[in-house]
Amino acid sequence: MKNLTIAYIGGGSRGWAWTLMADLASESAISGTVRLYDIDFEAARVNESIGNRLKTRTDVAGKWNYVAVATLAEALEGADFVIASILPGTFAEMRSDVHAPEKHGIWQSVGDTSGPGGLMRALRTVPQYEEIALAVRKYCPDAWVINYTNPLAQCVRTLYETFPAIKAFGCCHEVFGTQKLLAQAAKDVLGLEGVTRDEINVNVLGVNHFTWLDSASWRDVDLFPVYAQFADRHFAEGWEKGEEGHWLNTWFASAERVKFDLFRRYGLIAAAGDRHLAEFLPPWYLADPETVRSWKFTLTPVSWRIENAAKLRAKAADLAAGKEIFELKKSGEEGVRLIKALCGLGELKTNVNLPNRGQIEGLPLGTVVETNAVFSKDSVRPVMAGRLPPRVEALVARHAHAQTAINTAARAKDRSLALSAFLDDPLMTAGRADAERLFDEMLRATAAYLPGWKLN
Amino acid sequence: MKNLTIAYIGGGSRGWAWTLMADLASESAISGTVRLYDIDFEAARVNESIGNRLKTRTDVAGKWNYVAVATLAEALEGADFVIASILPGTFAEMRSDVHAPEKHGIWQSVGDTSGPGGLMRALRTVPQYEEIALAVRKYCPDAWVINYTNPLAQCVRTLYETFPAIKAFGCCHEVFGTQKLLAQAAKDVLGLEGVTRDEINVNVLGVNHFTWLDSASWRDVDLFPVYAQFADRHFAEGWEKGEEGHWLNTWFASAERVKFDLFRRYGLIAAAGDRHLAEFLPPWYLADPETVRSWKFTLTPVSWRIENAAKLRAKAADLAAGKEIFELKKSGEEGVRLIKALCGLGELKTNVNLPNRGQIEGLPLGTVVETNAVFSKDSVRPVMAGRLPPRVEALVARHAHAQTAINTAARAKDRSLALSAFLDDPLMTAGRADAERLFDEMLRATAAYLPGWKLN
Amino acid sequence: MKNLTIAYIGGGSRGWAWTLMADLASESAISGTVRLYDIDFEAARVNESIGNRLKTRTDVAGKWNYVAVATLAEALEGADFVIASILPGTFAEMRSDVHAPEKHGIWQSVGDTSGPGGLMRALRTVPQYEEIALAVRKYCPDAWVINYTNPLAQCVRTLYETFPAIKAFGCCHEVFGTQKLLAQAAKDVLGLEGVTRDEINVNVLGVNHFTWLDSASWRDVDLFPVYAQFADRHFAEGWEKGEEGHWLNTWFASAERVKFDLFRRYGLIAAAGDRHLAEFLPPWYLADPETVRSWKFTLTPVSWRIENAAKLRAKAADLAAGKEIFELKKSGEEGVRLIKALCGLGELKTNVNLPNRGQIEGLPLGTVVETNAVFSKDSVRPVMAGRLPPRVEALVARHAHAQTAINTAARAKDRSLALSAFLDDPLMTAGRADAERLFDEMLRATAAYLPGWKLN
Amino acid sequence: MKNLTIAYIGGGSRGWAWTLMADLASESAISGTVRLYDIDFEAARVNESIGNRLKTRTDVAGKWNYVAVATLAEALEGADFVIASILPGTFAEMRSDVHAPEKHGIWQSVGDTSGPGGLMRALRTVPQYEEIALAVRKYCPDAWVINYTNPLAQCVRTLYETFPAIKAFGCCHEVFGTQKLLAQAAKDVLGLEGVTRDEINVNVLGVNHFTWLDSASWRDVDLFPVYAQFADRHFAEGWEKGEEGHWLNTWFASAERVKFDLFRRYGLIAAAGDRHLAEFLPPWYLADPETVRSWKFTLTPVSWRIENAAKLRAKAADLAAGKEIFELKKSGEEGVRLIKALCGLGELKTNVNLPNRGQIEGLPLGTVVETNAVFSKDSVRPVMAGRLPPRVEALVARHAHAQTAINTAARAKDRSLALSAFLDDPLMTAGRADAERLFDEMLRATAAYLPGWKLN
Repeated sequence: MKNLTIAYIGGGSRGWAWTLMADLASESAISGTVRLYDIDFEAARVNESIGNRLKTRTDVAGKWNYVAVATLAEALEGADFVIASILPGTFAEMRSDVHAPEKHGIWQSVGDTSGPGGLMRALRTVPQYEEIALAVRKYCPDAWVINYTNPLAQCVRTLYETFPAIKAFGCCHEVFGTQKLLAQAAKDVLGLEGVTRDEINVNVLGVNHFTWLDSASWRDVDLFPVYAQFADRHFAEGWEKGEEGHWLNTWFASAERVKFDLFRRYGLIAAAGDRHLAEFLPPWYLADPETVRSWKFTLTPVSWRIENAAKLRAKAADLAAGKEIFELKKSGEEGVRLIKALCGLGELKTNVNLPNRGQIEGLPLGTVVETNAVFSKDSVRPVMAGRLPPRVEALVARHAHAQTAINTAARAKDRSLALSAFLDDPLMTAGRADAERLFDEMLRATAAYLPGWKLN
Repeated sequence: MKNLTIAYIGGGSRGWAWTLMADLASESAISGTVRLYDIDFEAARVNESIGNRLKTRTDVAGKWNYVAVATLAEALEGADFVIASILPGTFAEMRSDVHAPEKHGIWQSVGDTSGPGGLMRALRTVPQYEEIALAVRKYCPDAWVINYTNPLAQCVRTLYETFPAIKAFGCCHEVFGTQKLLAQAAKDVLGLEGVTRDEINVNVLGVNHFTWLDSASWRDVDLFPVYAQFADRHFAEGWEKGEEGHWLNTWFASAERVKFDLFRRYGLIAAAGDRHLAEFLPPWYLADPETVRSWKFTLTPVSWRIENAAKLRAKAADLAAGKEIFELKKSGEEGVRLIKALCGLGELKTNVNLPNRGQIEGLPLGTVVETNAVFSKDSVRPVMAGRLPPRVEALVARHAHAQTAINTAARAKDRSLALSAFLDDPLMTAGRADAERLFDEMLRATAAYLPGWKLN
Repeated sequence: MKNLTIAYIGGGSRGWAWTLMADLASESAISGTVRLYDIDFEAARVNESIGNRLKTRTDVAGKWNYVAVATLAEALEGADFVIASILPGTFAEMRSDVHAPEKHGIWQSVGDTSGPGGLMRALRTVPQYEEIALAVRKYCPDAWVINYTNPLAQCVRTLYETFPAIKAFGCCHEVFGTQKLLAQAAKDVLGLEGVTRDEINVNVLGVNHFTWLDSASWRDVDLFPVYAQFADRHFAEGWEKGEEGHWLNTWFASAERVKFDLFRRYGLIAAAGDRHLAEFLPPWYLADPETVRSWKFTLTPVSWRIENAAKLRAKAADLAAGKEIFELKKSGEEGVRLIKALCGLGELKTNVNLPNRGQIEGLPLGTVVETNAVFSKDSVRPVMAGRLPPRVEALVARHAHAQTAINTAARAKDRSLALSAFLDDPLMTAGRADAERLFDEMLRATAAYLPGWKLN
Repeated sequence: MKNLTIAYIGGGSRGWAWTLMADLASESAISGTVRLYDIDFEAARVNESIGNRLKTRTDVAGKWNYVAVATLAEALEGADFVIASILPGTFAEMRSDVHAPEKHGIWQSVGDTSGPGGLMRALRTVPQYEEIALAVRKYCPDAWVINYTNPLAQCVRTLYETFPAIKAFGCCHEVFGTQKLLAQAAKDVLGLEGVTRDEINVNVLGVNHFTWLDSASWRDVDLFPVYAQFADRHFAEGWEKGEEGHWLNTWFASAERVKFDLFRRYGLIAAAGDRHLAEFLPPWYLADPETVRSWKFTLTPVSWRIENAAKLRAKAADLAAGKEIFELKKSGEEGVRLIKALCGLGELKTNVNLPNRGQIEGLPLGTVVETNAVFSKDSVRPVMAGRLPPRVEALVARHAHAQTAINTAARAKDRSLALSAFLDDPLMTAGRADAERLFDEMLRATAAYLPGWKLN
């Protein structure tokens, strides 16, 4: 496993790409070349420099060559693995996704998966993933494709709809966060110290970012009653994790009050961040900024993302120039472990997003769902997760059907079908006429990424 | 077929019972006894008198004995057919179903199938149908059970959940009304005269009262382009059918504007009255009484139902006493034709409500759905209807999942599950706290029919 | 419906083509052109003459033009209907199919559907149907394709595997014959006169030529107990239908003893001729010619088919030349009624062969199965037939799986897969080494029709 | 996990019971009580003594109390785990199962799973497992039930058919044997030393004893090409494993020639002993004792089992009396590891037999199939195994359907259905009349265990 080729689509990124570099650097069992492809070639070049600095360092166990390449074809040709983490469109489009609905009283905490913003983002992402799927079929049909881009389920769905024999899956760390929370609950309620998140055994069912656990245990300890006590104890004030993670101090944190509320209402553990969960439901938690504050999570503004991107760009330049030293710490992400497992180096059971072949009973076949799967040499096999109870199944099924409608609309460039999904979203409280106007406005705002569409 | 026994549950009714009497009277091929069972025994007695007057009349072809019976057991013992058309609870409960939500700005045109009212009605109907199912299993397990009660799908679902081997189905005339409209379209657009509704061939898919047609033809004429033209022509003003059927003059009529709008948006023909259809969707058509008027249909007040019931009670007394002559005219309903078909006297293809065994692809198995079926001797076999397009499937699937959640809640007496379905209804625009208060208020209003429930 | 175009593949045939001519001639509601395509162009020419003679006759109600065409493309271009009834290969190949296995003690009564002969015939038919499917996709993708060729299920399967959106089905009259037998039973047991076969209502489940009825009725009479009595009464001697149909006098008749035996053993009515049924089972009825005789059916020799073909060729010449008058009598086949129904001229429920989409529970999806279906304007919709009882399901499922294996082998030109199916056939009693030798011998005998195969 | 209660049904056994004792003794993480129930109470008593001797030994890590109990109720009341390994009937019945068919030229190497012997054994085992299922429902509905008895799939099937909510599965070591063979292949072909069987990663699909692998690897090494070379190298002479395992020296060994032959024909690795595999196929390998010898495996005579049982009985007495010291060595079985995993002490992926919920595509739902599953705290979840290729699916599906037919026949005491399965078995080469006589003879021989049957 010393000659692996990884094609990285979105190789100029400063989040996932750096994470991968750090994780590859700490793993001695595999090595090879990472081809960095990005529509911003300069960014890929910068990452190439950053990456190649690593192999000379003595504290680096895994030695990799990084090469920025100019075309998708060059990146993919004969690759063993493909990683995709792109920003679909620019922050300009994302600004419309997230903020345009606000004038109708529709607030979104993330706006990249569900809700009106998630839908628009899907419409412009799908054509790019159709292109990726066709390129994989052409240049590396046997490669494993790992997707991180959101809306994750839509990306994976598009890959399979376009090239049914593709070996692709989607990875997300939201379940890991919930496992960490369960470890904290075990400490808080039972006084258990030192429990790590991957020791927490969970059964996962749902669609990405709206994922649920119907069992959780640590060794012989059933964590459901533990979590029940934990949720009751902290429901009123929320669970504060110290300064760093305090929901007031970061655009990504929350005090888990949404999660606690859902547990008390539905009896299952919702397994994603509160900011994501809230967007899959009627505006119970997102009615207005006041309500959001009362539930102790945040509306992440796109302006912050823009500022942050500028900072990271500067940091990248420094890293490439050697002015700043790349910090090597394991990310907690599983990408590299999954690559190893697919090489035959250590079987792994973890949660993953794949088309439903029956692993979740009661949800439509073909929908991309999230469950556990077993990763072993050249194989990812879902573990049968059973069925959600009726009350949660109804909530999730609605998004499963929306996934199909939105994906079909995006591939068929069908305004009318996309509109029907837009009107059907749980967050859509605007009257129909307003909603339709908003739809057209948002569609126009993302039009640069909708080749072949007839817009109103 | 001269010794048939029909058990009529709700045999004191003045709607469906009289319809049946008229249709049986006009049909010479079958005869026997109709046992009338009603919790209002006196009403059953009155209908007994009315029914028995018929057999002496020379203009009556089908001679039947009518017997009021005091218990369900007496009614069912050895019956060949069971017909159920009951009012679940009284108008007092229905008043709450329909009107209680209005203070939160939730308006319902019927309130007996979907929406908050339909849900409450289901909760009190399901236990009664559990009882019926158990009695059928005990007293006449081989009988065919024909249900007319609303919420129809919930009734049929309960019968099958309670006694899986039951031979039951649900009948509804809403599709017939749409076939009539198609005949009118054929006349309006093509000038075709004399087309009758049962000559219109349609493929039916959906759940009761939210049923759709994806093909329609008359002989060799495809009626889809015809209906498209018809809908465009009359969308703005609505389709007025003359004084009698004018939407302003009756609590049941409409000008079909909702149906036309749905066709223009979704490309399929919605096949139920506008008053029903509007209740399955977000409050596009039911935002407020003003909006309802603009779409040219009506909010049927329960007060009208109460008045009307009093008139019918008086009429029943007159009919029983011979002061008024029972009018013999065919109802256009198919109950008697179906009974004949099940006796082997004439195969029939028509729409019917049955658990999904695959007749509609893409909707959950077990959900009671509406499609065509072939009725022949002792057999009802669904015709495979195919699959709804994604945009309509998403709308219908939501109600299919709600059906399961509500039915399960009703059978398990599970307040929390019922509440989750209540919050999930497309008409539910109240905030969650208000909604939950309304839920408890409505639940208390129907509490007399919720044995075994723990109420808040 | 006066301008229909029917493409007839195998248009030089003297069986099905003449049947079609006679049925079209007797039907006034439709007319148009029949394009006759045959690899034996001269035979198509002869039929063109025969057909065109008809339209001048005063006793002919349906006036059609017949045109022999030289290519498949000419036949299909823009056709409304395609009928396929071909002889796959020649009688030389069929001689090997039927008789080569005899030296190993394997006797086949027909050899065109199941058994070693049916398998070989499938291998050479499938490539021809792949070609037809591709041509339909190219020249008339909206046409309805009606197949009569055997092995029927393999032909229909190939059409759908090659062009999944094709509108194709397979027609077979074997069920009609069983309905006739039921009418005879009604007369024999109950003394009912004048019952016609299409008044007999049956539920059909199985694969073509191995089809079963789990209910049968005539009006209000359940024919299952009637058939039981009939089968018992005539089991020992067989049911002789008078001189004409006596099993000793014709290569196609039987005394129904196999059918009676299967009924007594399995409790369902097998709905095909005994000659076909016997070939789907272990050699209970086909152990040797002696056994066949004792069951009172026949082994149809290919030599007879060759002689008969010569006679028909001569007759065709006479008919074309006007030396003999074409006899106009309705065939009892349903092809023309089905065409009318698909045009919107009269809905029809009848048995048909289609890919399983769930119409038979318990058999694999995708397998071509035989059930009832409703034919109406531009639509064929299977009626849900339920499930076979375990004992019969096991027998039928074996052939359903064989269908997949053989069809896959034929399309992939996979000798090894074809061999495994050959070894798996219920009639295969030869030891494995002998069987494999026989397989290769038979494969070589049909090699002219196996383009692209690597033979041993 | 110090107070576990294990109920052992068949607790007088000298095979599986001693295995369990040895494995429990070597495992310190769990302890508790094993209740030994056996219809031979004396044998349970003897095992009680043997077991209780262990806890005093210093080389024993796991301390357990053994108690012989007189009734099933006492054994099950409140148990955490139930283990079932019984001899259904006695060797007298088994003698008939295995040897009665020989006079018709039908030879069976084991006669406990498939073939005429396996069928008869199923008929008498099913009623006993119905009783067990009902008792588990009554006395310990939450217990995990682990079955070792053959016919294993029939036992597990009966448990689920009788008590659908049961938590039961069937364990078998045949796949382990195949993993060992793969380790030997890795050594033989690649020179890899020290590979252990549980390092071999395989994907398992099939029904018990007729199980297949469609992938196999060790770390990053794909073992399919390795096995292909191994099979070719040793096909002619067979793979001899040294004196001990030589097929001539033991009634259980083989030289793997059947397995090699199946690989060369079907391209998949058959994952059970040759003696089992041969019984699922037409008599290719079992035509006569000569043929069996040429394939280098053995026909295990029941006389040997009887002799061996007598030896073991004597040995048991010695062990109980302390005349012989119980040898503590790990069995290689997984029962104790599975119990630990279900307690939350170490997740495990291994092969197991469970009703098909979709883990194998293409085989009927509900059939008990063998695939991998993940065992974790209070949960066994199948890993989705995909689909067998058509040629193998056809072979396996035949037995899946037979499983249903035989199980249904046994529960319904339906001679006719049992006979139809008997006639349908691949080994059944006798003519139908002979077969039916044999069936009745064998049924009479096992009649003591067929309560409620009407025999001929």
